[in-house]
Amino acid sequence: MCPVPVSELPGLADIEQAAERIAGLAHRTPVLTSTHFNERTGAELYFKCENFQKVGAFKFRGACNAIRALTPEQARRGIVTHSSGNHGQAVALAAAMNGLKAVVVMPKDSARVKLEAVRGYGAEVVLCEPGIATRDAAVRKLIEQHGYHEIPPYDHPDIIAGQGTAALELLEEVPDLDVIMAPVGGGGLLAGTAIAARHLKPAIRVIAAEPANADDAARSFRSGQIEPAASTQTIADGLRTTLGVLNFAVIQRHVDDIVTVSEQAIIDTTREVWSRMKIIIEPSCAVPLAALLEGRFDAYSKKVGIILTGGNVDIDRFVAG
Amino acid sequence: MCPVPVSELPGLADIEQAAERIAGLAHRTPVLTSTHFNERTGAELYFKCENFQKVGAFKFRGACNAIRALTPEQARRGIVTHSSGNHGQAVALAAAMNGLKAVVVMPKDSARVKLEAVRGYGAEVVLCEPGIATRDAAVRKLIEQHGYHEIPPYDHPDIIAGQGTAALELLEEVPDLDVIMAPVGGGGLLAGTAIAARHLKPAIRVIAAEPANADDAARSFRSGQIEPAASTQTIADGLRTTLGVLNFAVIQRHVDDIVTVSEQAIIDTTREVWSRMKIIIEPSCAVPLAALLEGRFDAYSKKVGIILTGGNVDIDRFVAG
Repeated sequence: MCPVPVSELPGLADIEQAAERIAGLAHRTPVLTSTHFNERTGAELYFKCENFQKVGAFKFRGACNAIRALTPEQARRGIVTHSSGNHGQAVALAAAMNGLKAVVVMPKDSARVKLEAVRGYGAEVVLCEPGIATRDAAVRKLIEQHGYHEIPPYDHPDIIAGQGTAALELLEEVPDLDVIMAPVGGGGLLAGTAIAARHLKPAIRVIAAEPANADDAARSFRSGQIEPAASTQTIADGLRTTLGVLNFAVIQRHVDDIVTVSEQAIIDTTREVWSRMKIIIEPSCAVPLAALLEGRFDAYSKKVGIILTGGNVDIDRFVAG
Repeated sequence: MCPVPVSELPGLADIEQAAERIAGLAHRTPVLTSTHFNERTGAELYFKCENFQKVGAFKFRGACNAIRALTPEQARRGIVTHSSGNHGQAVALAAAMNGLKAVVVMPKDSARVKLEAVRGYGAEVVLCEPGIATRDAAVRKLIEQHGYHEIPPYDHPDIIAGQGTAALELLEEVPDLDVIMAPVGGGGLLAGTAIAARHLKPAIRVIAAEPANADDAARSFRSGQIEPAASTQTIADGLRTTLGVLNFAVIQRHVDDIVTVSEQAIIDTTREVWSRMKIIIEPSCAVPLAALLEGRFDAYSKKVGIILTGGNVDIDRFVAG
């Protein structure tokens, strides 16, 4: 794999531009604190609540930025993406808000509620067989047939810059953070977070967290090259994706460590957040806090910002499970 | 029943004093908005999130104010209260934070999690047979034996003033509300809300909402005297209490209307808030919003503040139910 030239990596200016592009479209989400979790961790925690973001996840930031970065010609042709989760909804809503036609390729076995949500935002859904290769092939075919422009889910400068606006807002509100934490799946959020944090506060520690059961990012971080996912058997369904190439280049440059946590810690932490903070987060969100609670990273007496990435769970299913 | 003289009713100054007393102890809770519910109601809604308050409910405000209003002699003797719900936890925590001994009388059939929470805050729990008369008798006996000072759950000027600080904060943040809504059970929150809102903004509409299955407040409001509860079969367990005398005097003076909603609307609204706003509220909280969604009060194009009162639910039980 070719290393990505530094000149191609997005910088702080791209994130600031993204913030301007999405202003008034994405929510400026609140930052919450929790006496309970401060006591549990010995740290001072600041939670950036992207579970309150439009479509219930940070993904709306990147999708919205990528769509507003299109040339008029690209926008006119309409857009296409593939997703089994929050990105599909994010693209569908961002397209609708900007008056664009959107097509979302989704696996046949997607939850009905997700298919309906994407359609509800006015996008066309094209079903395909499950599997990333099949999804990608379906997107290629649609582009060939209709000339659509693709909005990739995470490995793209506009997506990274959009996701980085969450950290930008968090650091505007709490400028003296010692540490900033985000979960890592495809790495778009982590890359954006790392760029924003490193440029605004060079001495900050940027720590990512990942399920031990899907630890390709942690292994890649140690080996220096993108390692394939050995397993993706994790309840944190937003973190099953493999690292993007561009994202990995940013992560190598700006992330201090990637720690991993057990499935039990993810489940326990998700429930503890629901019960103590009275907010609904999806399990993927709980991973950085789980890492603190499991002692994977010592944040004692530090000011720690944590991006809570989303709140899209099937309430009945998760709680009963 | 003797009418309460106006001179005995708390006023705005009492609420402002309460705000000073509880500053730094109670959370200044965030105000959230929801595009979804704005679209559903045609109104502009502002949710004051007391589900994020200490002990997960607005009750902490009143308990904390009442405890800090004690004379040194009263404080030295220790305090007692009875509660099967959030008030017990509120008193236990507020007492602990102020270095006071607290005894909470709780019915034997209280949920174990609630007993543990009260004990966890360091209060002594005295168990009694279920029933309000039994609980009250147990409190009298403890006062007689130990000289404790009683912190009543809702029908007291210090409690009313404390609860009113939520509306005070909401109106500081959104001064141009047309309407303010709160649920009504014992009426402490509603009375405090009505006093704050009426004095800060005389033209505001103060609307209370109540389960149709426990509509004693609505009936009392219409008849002009406190009517006994005919039934309290509602999932909104925080609203089963009968109106307090002092609270009713305030409500008659300052509340514009009390509307009622069905059990199904309460359940549906609770779930819709969980799923769309990603916050956990208890069913009692959902009652004012349910009234808007059921069209019991027309708030079209109005700015409406809603106090979300608490988030203490047994997650597993409520969602499975």
